[in-house]
Amino acid sequence: MGGDFAPDAIVQGARLACEDGLSVLLVGDERRLKPLVGDAAIRIVHTPTALGMDAGASEVRRHDDASVRLAMRLVSAGEATSVVSCGSSAATLVSAVIELGTLDGVDRPAIVIELPRSDGDLVLLDAGASADCKPRHLETFALLGTAWARAKGVDAPKVGLLSNGEERGKGNRLVREAYALLDAAAIDFIGNVEPDDALAGKADVLVCDGYTGNVVLKAAEGLVASLQERLRTAIRGSWRARLGAWLLAPALRDVRDQLDWRHQGGALLLGAAAPVVVGHGRADADATRAAIAQAHYASREGAVRELARALSDRSRAHGGSLDDARRDR
Amino acid sequence: MGGDFAPDAIVQGARLACEDGLSVLLVGDERRLKPLVGDAAIRIVHTPTALGMDAGASEVRRHDDASVRLAMRLVSAGEATSVVSCGSSAATLVSAVIELGTLDGVDRPAIVIELPRSDGDLVLLDAGASADCKPRHLETFALLGTAWARAKGVDAPKVGLLSNGEERGKGNRLVREAYALLDAAAIDFIGNVEPDDALAGKADVLVCDGYTGNVVLKAAEGLVASLQERLRTAIRGSWRARLGAWLLAPALRDVRDQLDWRHQGGALLLGAAAPVVVGHGRADADATRAAIAQAHYASREGAVRELARALSDRSRAHGGSLDDARRDR
Repeated sequence: MGGDFAPDAIVQGARLACEDGLSVLLVGDERRLKPLVGDAAIRIVHTPTALGMDAGASEVRRHDDASVRLAMRLVSAGEATSVVSCGSSAATLVSAVIELGTLDGVDRPAIVIELPRSDGDLVLLDAGASADCKPRHLETFALLGTAWARAKGVDAPKVGLLSNGEERGKGNRLVREAYALLDAAAIDFIGNVEPDDALAGKADVLVCDGYTGNVVLKAAEGLVASLQERLRTAIRGSWRARLGAWLLAPALRDVRDQLDWRHQGGALLLGAAAPVVVGHGRADADATRAAIAQAHYASREGAVRELARALSDRSRAHGGSLDDARRDR
Repeated sequence: MGGDFAPDAIVQGARLACEDGLSVLLVGDERRLKPLVGDAAIRIVHTPTALGMDAGASEVRRHDDASVRLAMRLVSAGEATSVVSCGSSAATLVSAVIELGTLDGVDRPAIVIELPRSDGDLVLLDAGASADCKPRHLETFALLGTAWARAKGVDAPKVGLLSNGEERGKGNRLVREAYALLDAAAIDFIGNVEPDDALAGKADVLVCDGYTGNVVLKAAEGLVASLQERLRTAIRGSWRARLGAWLLAPALRDVRDQLDWRHQGGALLLGAAAPVVVGHGRADADATRAAIAQAHYASREGAVRELARALSDRSRAHGGSLDDARRDR
C-alpha cells in the first residue's frame, strides 16, 4: 500500500515478479488489491490499515495492523522470506525493528546503497532510514558497512565519515562527535572523507546520517535526470549530433543502466534480522519488480546470514561482542 | 595563501587575471609570493600569517594579521573592491563578518551557488560557510536567496527547504524547526523540497545548512567526474563509439563547460557588505583566474548594492525592516 503510485504500480510490479517465477504475497486492503491482482497467482493478506508517507515512529508503534508491520510478521511467522516496502522509509525501519528485530550488536539498521564506480562499488549508509542520528548510530553504520563490504568481497574496507572537509574538526557537530567513536572502533577508519574523493576511490564505505545520505542520493538522481534531459536537447540540435549519438549508444548502454534506479529496485535495510528492501517512493511497476527480485536474491543468497557472520567475526577478532566493545568505552 | 595549491596556483591565476586587464593585489608572505609574481604588475601586501584549511572561528578572531582578514581590510579601506579566497570557507565567513560587516538584517552570510538547469538556475545556499546552523540562519538564507534570485530577474522566487521528503514533518530536527520560521517569513515558501524535484524546476531557491549544501555540491562534482571517466572508458572501447563521440562533441561543449567548476570560478558569500568570492579549495590557476573575474564583475555590476536594495524592498513591502520583522516573532 506504500509508495506514490500504490497500490496500482505495486500490484503491477508484483504481477511481473510473479511472471518471473517468484512467489509474492501482497499485504493491504483486499477490496483495492483484488481487482488489480486479477487472475495472477498472488495471495492477498488483508488489513484495512495503511500508513501514509509521512508516518512517524509513534504512528507506526500505535498501528500493529498496518500493512508494513503485517508484512514483517509474515516473515517472523515463516510465511515469507523477505519484505519489500515502497512506503515511508522511517516507518519501514521502525516496523522492522519491532517485528523482525535486529542483528546482534545493531541498535539501528540503516539503508545501504552501492554507488557504482569504475573501481568497485562505494557502500553508502544511512541512505534515508534515520533523519536524525546520534554519534553511536554512525558507529553502528560503520560496523554494518564494513561487514557488508567484506561479505561482498572487499578484504579490508576503508571507512570514511562523510564530511565537507577532510581535516579532523571539519563537518557538523554530529560528524565531529562521531569521529572519536569511529576512530576507536574495530574498523579501518580513514577519517573525514569528502563525497567526491569517496567516489574517486578513497573510501569503500561512507557513513552519514539518513537525512544527508538521502539528500545526496536524490540530488545525484536529479543531476543524472537533468543531464540526460540536456544531452537529449543538445543531440536534437543537429544531424551531426544525432548521428554521433546513434553510433555511441551501444557503448553507453551499461553506464546508462547503472544510473537508472528503476533497474536497481530498492535498497536493503541493513542490520534487520531478515531481508527488507526499501523500494523507491516513486516506484513504478518495473522498479517494484526489480525490488522484489532484489529481496528474493537477498534471502536466497543468505545476505543477512552472511552479514551476521561478518559482524560476529569482526567482534571475535577484537575479543568480544560488539555490545561488549561498546560497553567498554 | 589559502587553497590546496597555494600560493603557486593562486599567483599564476592572479597573473592570468592581470593579463586579462584586471588589477590584482596579493595578500600574504612576500618572500614566498615575490619570486612567483616575477615581473607581473601585481602589488603584494605583506603579512607573515596565513590560516590553515582547518582554521576555526576562534583562530580567525585571534589572528587579525591573517592574510584573509588583511585582504578584507583592504576593501574596508577602499584599496580594493572585492576579495577572493580559496582558503577555509569558515575562516572566510568569519573574516568577512568581522572586517566587512553584513547587510542590514543579515546575521549570517551564506555561500550561494547557482546550479544550471534547462529552465533557469537553481539558487542553493548555504553551500558551505556554516556547517552548523540554527533555524533562524535558514530563515536568513531564504531571505538572501529570494533577494538574490529577484536581483537576477526571477519575479517571485519559490523558496524550498531542502529535505529528504516533501511532507511537512520530514527532514532532520533543523529542517522541522526551520519550517515554521520560513512559513511565517516574507517569502514565497513552498515547503520541503527534495533535491531532485528542485533540479526539475519545483523551487527557484533551495536553503539548507552549509554541511549539507557543501556535501551535495561535492557529491555532484564527484558524480560528474566519475561519469566523465566512465564515458571516456566506454568510448575508447570501439571505433564506432569513438567516431560517435567525435561527431557529438561540438553539441556537448556547452553542457560540458557548465559542469566544470574550473570555468565558473568560485561562489559568492552572500550577505557580506562587499563582494567576497569563495574559491574552490582545489583551485588551479584557471579556476583562480575565473574566481578573480567573478569578483570583478560582482563589484562592477553592483551585485551587493542590488542585493541590499532587494532585501530592503522586500522588508518595506512587508512594513518594516527584517530586524523588526524578526523581533515581532
